[in-house]
Amino acid sequence: MYREPLLGPTRAEILEYTSSMEEDKLIACEVLEVLEAHVEELKALNAIPGSSADRILDELRALKENPGELFHYKAEDVHEAVEIHLYNKLGAEAGYLALGRSRNDHVAAALRLKVARMLLLESLEMLRLRRILLSRALQYLEEPLPLYTHMRPAQVSTVAHYLLYIDELLATYLNLIPALIEVTLRSPQGSGPAAGVMTPLDRRRLASRLFGGRLVYNTFYATTSRDFMLLALAFNVSLLTSLSRIAEDLVVLSSPQIGYFKLPEEHLATSSIMPHKRNPATLEIARAKAGELLGYFVSIASILKGLTSGYNLDMQEANKHVLAALKDALDTLRILGDVLEKLEVNEEAVRRDLELYPLLLPDLAEVIALKTGKPFREVHREIASYVRSSRSPAEVYEALKSTYGIELDYVKAIGRPVLGSPNPASAREYVEGELESLKDLESRLSPYFHLLESSCIKQHPVIREASFSSGTSSENM
Amino acid sequence: MYREPLLGPTRAEILEYTSSMEEDKLIACEVLEVLEAHVEELKALNAIPGSSADRILDELRALKENPGELFHYKAEDVHEAVEIHLYNKLGAEAGYLALGRSRNDHVAAALRLKVARMLLLESLEMLRLRRILLSRALQYLEEPLPLYTHMRPAQVSTVAHYLLYIDELLATYLNLIPALIEVTLRSPQGSGPAAGVMTPLDRRRLASRLFGGRLVYNTFYATTSRDFMLLALAFNVSLLTSLSRIAEDLVVLSSPQIGYFKLPEEHLATSSIMPHKRNPATLEIARAKAGELLGYFVSIASILKGLTSGYNLDMQEANKHVLAALKDALDTLRILGDVLEKLEVNEEAVRRDLELYPLLLPDLAEVIALKTGKPFREVHREIASYVRSSRSPAEVYEALKSTYGIELDYVKAIGRPVLGSPNPASAREYVEGELESLKDLESRLSPYFHLLESSCIKQHPVIREASFSSGTSSENM
Amino acid sequence: MYREPLLGPTRAEILEYTSSMEEDKLIACEVLEVLEAHVEELKALNAIPGSSADRILDELRALKENPGELFHYKAEDVHEAVEIHLYNKLGAEAGYLALGRSRNDHVAAALRLKVARMLLLESLEMLRLRRILLSRALQYLEEPLPLYTHMRPAQVSTVAHYLLYIDELLATYLNLIPALIEVTLRSPQGSGPAAGVMTPLDRRRLASRLFGGRLVYNTFYATTSRDFMLLALAFNVSLLTSLSRIAEDLVVLSSPQIGYFKLPEEHLATSSIMPHKRNPATLEIARAKAGELLGYFVSIASILKGLTSGYNLDMQEANKHVLAALKDALDTLRILGDVLEKLEVNEEAVRRDLELYPLLLPDLAEVIALKTGKPFREVHREIASYVRSSRSPAEVYEALKSTYGIELDYVKAIGRPVLGSPNPASAREYVEGELESLKDLESRLSPYFHLLESSCIKQHPVIREASFSSGTSSENM
Amino acid sequence: MYREPLLGPTRAEILEYTSSMEEDKLIACEVLEVLEAHVEELKALNAIPGSSADRILDELRALKENPGELFHYKAEDVHEAVEIHLYNKLGAEAGYLALGRSRNDHVAAALRLKVARMLLLESLEMLRLRRILLSRALQYLEEPLPLYTHMRPAQVSTVAHYLLYIDELLATYLNLIPALIEVTLRSPQGSGPAAGVMTPLDRRRLASRLFGGRLVYNTFYATTSRDFMLLALAFNVSLLTSLSRIAEDLVVLSSPQIGYFKLPEEHLATSSIMPHKRNPATLEIARAKAGELLGYFVSIASILKGLTSGYNLDMQEANKHVLAALKDALDTLRILGDVLEKLEVNEEAVRRDLELYPLLLPDLAEVIALKTGKPFREVHREIASYVRSSRSPAEVYEALKSTYGIELDYVKAIGRPVLGSPNPASAREYVEGELESLKDLESRLSPYFHLLESSCIKQHPVIREASFSSGTSSENM
Repeated sequence: MYREPLLGPTRAEILEYTSSMEEDKLIACEVLEVLEAHVEELKALNAIPGSSADRILDELRALKENPGELFHYKAEDVHEAVEIHLYNKLGAEAGYLALGRSRNDHVAAALRLKVARMLLLESLEMLRLRRILLSRALQYLEEPLPLYTHMRPAQVSTVAHYLLYIDELLATYLNLIPALIEVTLRSPQGSGPAAGVMTPLDRRRLASRLFGGRLVYNTFYATTSRDFMLLALAFNVSLLTSLSRIAEDLVVLSSPQIGYFKLPEEHLATSSIMPHKRNPATLEIARAKAGELLGYFVSIASILKGLTSGYNLDMQEANKHVLAALKDALDTLRILGDVLEKLEVNEEAVRRDLELYPLLLPDLAEVIALKTGKPFREVHREIASYVRSSRSPAEVYEALKSTYGIELDYVKAIGRPVLGSPNPASAREYVEGELESLKDLESRLSPYFHLLESSCIKQHPVIREASFSSGTSSENM
Repeated sequence: MYREPLLGPTRAEILEYTSSMEEDKLIACEVLEVLEAHVEELKALNAIPGSSADRILDELRALKENPGELFHYKAEDVHEAVEIHLYNKLGAEAGYLALGRSRNDHVAAALRLKVARMLLLESLEMLRLRRILLSRALQYLEEPLPLYTHMRPAQVSTVAHYLLYIDELLATYLNLIPALIEVTLRSPQGSGPAAGVMTPLDRRRLASRLFGGRLVYNTFYATTSRDFMLLALAFNVSLLTSLSRIAEDLVVLSSPQIGYFKLPEEHLATSSIMPHKRNPATLEIARAKAGELLGYFVSIASILKGLTSGYNLDMQEANKHVLAALKDALDTLRILGDVLEKLEVNEEAVRRDLELYPLLLPDLAEVIALKTGKPFREVHREIASYVRSSRSPAEVYEALKSTYGIELDYVKAIGRPVLGSPNPASAREYVEGELESLKDLESRLSPYFHLLESSCIKQHPVIREASFSSGTSSENM
Repeated sequence: MYREPLLGPTRAEILEYTSSMEEDKLIACEVLEVLEAHVEELKALNAIPGSSADRILDELRALKENPGELFHYKAEDVHEAVEIHLYNKLGAEAGYLALGRSRNDHVAAALRLKVARMLLLESLEMLRLRRILLSRALQYLEEPLPLYTHMRPAQVSTVAHYLLYIDELLATYLNLIPALIEVTLRSPQGSGPAAGVMTPLDRRRLASRLFGGRLVYNTFYATTSRDFMLLALAFNVSLLTSLSRIAEDLVVLSSPQIGYFKLPEEHLATSSIMPHKRNPATLEIARAKAGELLGYFVSIASILKGLTSGYNLDMQEANKHVLAALKDALDTLRILGDVLEKLEVNEEAVRRDLELYPLLLPDLAEVIALKTGKPFREVHREIASYVRSSRSPAEVYEALKSTYGIELDYVKAIGRPVLGSPNPASAREYVEGELESLKDLESRLSPYFHLLESSCIKQHPVIREASFSSGTSSENM
Repeated sequence: MYREPLLGPTRAEILEYTSSMEEDKLIACEVLEVLEAHVEELKALNAIPGSSADRILDELRALKENPGELFHYKAEDVHEAVEIHLYNKLGAEAGYLALGRSRNDHVAAALRLKVARMLLLESLEMLRLRRILLSRALQYLEEPLPLYTHMRPAQVSTVAHYLLYIDELLATYLNLIPALIEVTLRSPQGSGPAAGVMTPLDRRRLASRLFGGRLVYNTFYATTSRDFMLLALAFNVSLLTSLSRIAEDLVVLSSPQIGYFKLPEEHLATSSIMPHKRNPATLEIARAKAGELLGYFVSIASILKGLTSGYNLDMQEANKHVLAALKDALDTLRILGDVLEKLEVNEEAVRRDLELYPLLLPDLAEVIALKTGKPFREVHREIASYVRSSRSPAEVYEALKSTYGIELDYVKAIGRPVLGSPNPASAREYVEGELESLKDLESRLSPYFHLLESSCIKQHPVIREASFSSGTSSENM
């Protein structure tokens, strides 16, 4: 369609190497939406015949119902496939579609739309996961749990405190999503190949159809930049890296020898030869996803690095990595949410370790220093020597009791007097505050909920659930 | 200091492998600030003797003037070195410092302080660079410049349009910095090793000394998380990746055969054997920095990935990469600012290429389609055939003129009717709007300007310059 | 099939997250080959009934003709799908297949077989590309070409010299392939899940069926290690990184303003809006592939990093990245080969630049130093001052001639007296030597040619071509 | 020194951004060796006055004793610093040094020399580590150890089998080192800036001084390529990734709840606040190093990717990452060697888990299938159902015994009949074979031992140890 008048034919081998048809499947619907908006604008401007515009629009809408048709064509990309399809249907009239647009602005538009949607879905998954965590934390405000450093038991805490750690982690990321959507959901339409078009498109009006009226202003920036993709991916690599630590915690803490947590059986798999194996399959995949996302980010950053400004075909190769990454992030949040919702605590295993390991010593050292007025470092060294020469925690505790008359139990230790500690009152206060702040967050996100109304978006379960849980605001979705 | 009572001595080889003394040089001053705040809090609580607190504070303040002293000690890290130093000065009384704190919360605090400062300095450099770009754009509103796609001339634009592309790129990132500082500038102090401390520290009061009163709430999150580092680095990799494209543009567009830009001579280097070489040294380094930052990000993400929650010594290894990355980003912004401030345009070279290459064809194709009512695709193909059979742009232009009676010149093309195009009116409007919005940005940043008042921060040139340009707000710095 | 007796059912959402069915399509045939070898060994041992073995073998062979059938099953992976399929066909008898094997050893075996085949195909592509380069170099032994440093013209050389640079690059990598195949083509069969099996398999005999009799000896290493994948990918990232520089050279040197090379038109693409664009599409993709491979490598390395030894499901996630990377490398070598075979030299453009830029100055500086006995650094500085004050190369050359009576032309410069310079005699000698050494290389590879005889390997064009060009050795294939 | 005649002065800020002085400290000695060889060649050719050559050589040799002097100069790099230094000492005569060389060929030469040395040292560390493993394995041929998959106990094996897994991993890598040194240890000297020099250097004679007479042939390849660095780093990332799994194993298996291994106390660290902590400090750093190396590799690959051929200053930025990576790899091998040499086995903990977990089930399933003639899959499912309904391993074993009359013990299970299993006879045979093959390896490496004789190489402990252990071959060192 595009190349022949200037360059003549090419070979299948070469077309296959350069074509993006396979990857374009993921954005075909958005490409069609963008074209639809474009043709409506051309029609509003009377830049093309109204009846041709209507026929083109009809075909585009039909394709949106069934974009699969496009992928039977041998084409450089979905944009060319659409033109070939329209040509087959409408003849030369189809060529009106091509006025005042370039693949350079249109592919950017479709990608921005898709990425914004994925980020919005992600924010819904994060909201859902935070609600699960906050609600489960209330169940476990006083349930003891050893926390680890260096993969060894360190201090006694509570299950709630651990769950709220995950919640604050998610809150950190979730709070950034509105800013990321702001970066992303801007219209490059009307930017042409690099320096704009001669067709007098009203870019703001055009932007109001899909992008809430917001523009990437500079036309060269609009066609060249993949900052929105870099940033969306950078955000998600960081998030999944941190979540991989949670996955690892759960793998370790549900291992037979530790066993504080019992994973839901549907998240386990077994061996084809070892009939006793209970492997934490979903958590292992979740952990691996962090590595995969890091790779995807490296791909896109390395592809873009040092590329001259202006569209280069290299940029096409970045797309599949970005879309795979966003899907993986979304799925992983969902899977972790399911595990965290159904996780059970094995109190017996926790109790066993509270006996076996001298987890009260850091607290005791402080209490002794506070009560005796001794420098903490002296007390610390003294206790370390006791540990070196004793055979059990009880022996050390006994020695400290007999020397200082000071003892401690787990309940007191858990009630440490600082904000943000496992102290149940502090934890409850946090949960209550955050349940409120989730509502604020939802209202910060609600201006983008129109993104989910498109026929391009599958009925992802989180949309249904979000409507359910978010009360009145869901009516606006 | 720490290990001997429990574990006995170790060997130099092993200490060297695990010690972070070398890397800690970069945060030694922040570590001392954090300790100072901690001891002040202990004193306010009467948790340790007031006179001991004062003597410790005196020593800490003396060290802040000359942290180099710390690095003569053989120690695991700067935290241990401080304790050794205080012990040498004050004897056992030095051990009061250690109450209610852990390396786990203190290293996080020092890192957060340092990263927040680097981000703030970076925002000042970006503000400075944006002012340069906006002001230079006004000089070149009508100065033609070919824009490239696929490293080949594509469309005619203006120098201003190119500079404003860079400005919008920077604006995208700069707008995110306040949110990143919000994530970073939160106090983990009082979190102890993982689950808080028994010393009744008032964490909010403690946070008010260095962190504007803001907390990482959950103590496990506070000691475990490096999200602030991941995000700061993810942001900067993305930024430098995009800036590497500008560096590449300038390398290409200042090459002898193209030569639209003349680089300032102080940014060039020559060869030790080829006496004619003028190599764009600083731009090459700037381009390479994007690759280096990507590596630094991969280091930290890969170190953290799959690590159990809670402090692990692995985390120490991430620090040097983060601090190197932030410094590189800062330096690169400064260097690019200098190049862009002093860049000269070679009008002759631009004019040569406007003759040589048929850059008006995309605009002509649109104009013909608009005026004749032909489908654009038909016009496009027709022109492509002309190009294939012609020997010069003039020949193609002539053919189009004789067929359609339509011609175009560069001034008209530059004045494309869409927002964000090189159209001088559109560009001027953008500049004026952005000069206003920079002031808003400065006021969003001003709550953090206290970070720059510390004796830990060298008199970085951008601080001086920023005070100058930011008018009254500078008085608060 | 596997999970239900121990763990009960799971949900589609979870199965989808953990299943590797999609990725396993790429190794299904190898998985079947490995099973076939296994069942043959069980039969040879009389460990299972001979008639059952035969029926299972028949089914496996039928599946090899049409592995697509397997992907209609909902299964954890292709291994489970095969068992389900056999069960459907043969009933409980199918369960004999599962004796003395685990997915852990079998997936490693299939991956090793596949990777070894890809490496072998790659070596054939490299041989083909080297033959193209050596033969084209002979055409251009005296054809001048400026070489660049810092993206600016540096010294005069020849087209042959440039092509032979690429050849030596390829030779460096190609020489390592036999060692990589050695690492890869070793049988893990018989290793069971981790520590071997109780069925008395003769592992060497089993290895002789597909792996030339070579073993991964230690059964834990055999099931745990992905070193062969790390190394194959590390090799290919390095190779493609270096080849991306060639792609960049060709993009730059075929740009309109430089134009030393003319790319074959079938490797170009054009714009959907700019009818004059001739974009180097395949080279841009080839350049991007280096970035993609770097990402793939990071994915696998980051997935494996810090994983406990023994199979973890994370490892499954690495496979798709490795197989994608190897395919990309193979395709890229082919595409570059095609470009380099058909590249044309534009003598006129070269001549233009030889006039415009003072490329003889480094050579002249040396000649003057040699003839006058002056220290080179003095001469270098003197010439640099001439350059600074002159307006053209001719003016500098003239000044040097009048001062020293020394002049130089391109032919003399090209004939530099050191080995490996563009000197045509030196280049010819290299070509002749290398044509010989390619034969040695082929015989080093020939012990692995049996890998290409399997019905699992599509008739890749390079196999046909290789048979053609490698003369008698092809008969052994 | 270089820039002023052509380009005038520059500013400190810019010089600091582009200078490589800091990084060059690591290769200063090699740079001087390369210059020394070069001046000797110039002298042999009578290309410069013999007495000047001698004075220059004297200064170079003096500098080699104390390269630190060079770093007081403000210079672009160490090459310029050497020239400045010689100028200060010898005046204009120093300028003879600059004939027939470029920084482009000399920096490549110094880097190749340094990398080759690091690889050789690494091979010695690997040899040392393999000897430790092979010798310790003999101690533990029958010492039971559970192997894990999915971080859960899987099968019973032996300590020897685990150690030999590590040995085979190292063997895989060690076998590749000679090929990597071959790639690296080739002389680029005489290649000039890109296309050779006019001074008639005998490149082979020159190469015989430091590079065993071996050349990078093509002068453009010699100055452009960093393949040797990419490959050395790719190799080491892969190696350290695999070793990070060993580090993780040891962290996990020495954790309090598992405790099969006891780490040497000098490899532990404790907490500044928790007096009971025993943290596996060196192993955590070793694990982190894999992430750091991955970052270093990404830096260099991303810097080089898409760079035009010919020296670009970007390449300078890669050096520090490569040298840091090689040092980290060397140190990590040494540290792991020390841990593995001193690791103690806690038989009691092993025995506890052999009771607690049904590790004999996979073996029993096979034995039952073999003895009863039932399809394995049937037996597997049956046992899985027993496991599901039983409360202890003993109960399952009992059920199987009563159903089939079959039982098993650990000694029998360990003696699995396949090669490479923990079977003590198989393990012993492996050890004996490998002790022989280590000698072959040493003789493959011995041609490079001259690299260690230079005064540039510090008396690294492994050299001393290697001489000791390698018997007669050490006399040639």
